[in-house]
Amino acid sequence: MPPNIPDIVIGRLPIYLRALTRLAEEGHEVTSSHELGQLLGISSAQIRKDLSHFGGFGKQGTGYQIDFLIEQLRQVLKVNREWEVALVGAGDLGSAVAHYKGFKDRGFHIACVFDISPEKVGKKLGDFTIQSTQDAPKIIAERDIKMAMITVPAQHAQEVADMLIAAGIRAILNYAPISLNVPDNVRVQYIDPVVHMQRMTYYLTS
Amino acid sequence: MPPNIPDIVIGRLPIYLRALTRLAEEGHEVTSSHELGQLLGISSAQIRKDLSHFGGFGKQGTGYQIDFLIEQLRQVLKVNREWEVALVGAGDLGSAVAHYKGFKDRGFHIACVFDISPEKVGKKLGDFTIQSTQDAPKIIAERDIKMAMITVPAQHAQEVADMLIAAGIRAILNYAPISLNVPDNVRVQYIDPVVHMQRMTYYLTS
Repeated sequence: MPPNIPDIVIGRLPIYLRALTRLAEEGHEVTSSHELGQLLGISSAQIRKDLSHFGGFGKQGTGYQIDFLIEQLRQVLKVNREWEVALVGAGDLGSAVAHYKGFKDRGFHIACVFDISPEKVGKKLGDFTIQSTQDAPKIIAERDIKMAMITVPAQHAQEVADMLIAAGIRAILNYAPISLNVPDNVRVQYIDPVVHMQRMTYYLTS
Repeated sequence: MPPNIPDIVIGRLPIYLRALTRLAEEGHEVTSSHELGQLLGISSAQIRKDLSHFGGFGKQGTGYQIDFLIEQLRQVLKVNREWEVALVGAGDLGSAVAHYKGFKDRGFHIACVFDISPEKVGKKLGDFTIQSTQDAPKIIAERDIKMAMITVPAQHAQEVADMLIAAGIRAILNYAPISLNVPDNVRVQYIDPVVHMQRMTYYLTS
């Protein structure tokens, strides 16, 4: 891993990967930092600088081979494999996440679904049989699962996170609208649509 | 509006608001930049600096009155009112968003749901009757709706965005996994869980 890449650069790589995948699906073979920048609303200089952290992946003037760049980015981001993900919380939100088809082919695979409610345990949720959250530590440790999504109510999210981390989880996507306290060796990302909405209303004039 | 506040500062205000609301719900009346920082994993100096853009809201040494700070942040972010939001796309994802209970009391209210499919138009989705996307421009303009959420497949997201913007939409929360091109006077935010997941796998070691 190249040392000391700013996290903000890492955060842009999945955006580049998503755009490149789209270009490939549309039949393009070559692109440029200029074209990518236009697509993404990011300056071409920024894109070249970001990619230069990893060796550049392209030659000045000839652009980027899209398939090659996709493979390199998948390797840098470690999504040239499939990660098993544990989902905790099988309510409305958890059901929607379990059914979401967008994880496929992008590096992730929901491997198990947990809920604390005895009425839900044993029931089917899509292809999954809901398992008890009480069994999660054992199952996560046995399967060596490193990633989890939390879709429980906000007031239970921290205790669930603590349990997951103790079981070996090192990356959490938290859908509960609450900030989590985690040790330095655990990453957390958040999905809270209201935070995004409130960031936009500031700029609205009526 | 205070001039030239960096967007990254604006982006943190909803996080502060969310944490303060939680503290208030738990019965707290006063907090400090130190306590907030601990909760959020943000330095107290950063929090004080961010809030100082808007006058500070607190006195050195006495901390922040939580209710007062909540009201001030709601005012700055313009969520001391309720914004009507148009939702376009009534598939699995759109249904989940339409049923999401987290918008309530945080400044947003889904006002109408649109879908292009004739089989869906006229059907109920929770409390909503699905309307035709073809009628969206007229309805959005008449009701003077400024915000929209896009939950259509990626290949249709740009055309839907163009239509919404022509109808008067100025802020879009895009759930489709594709970057949108919009004019300078329109804000876009993205919800793509895979982007967040891929940002974390970079740091995982197995």
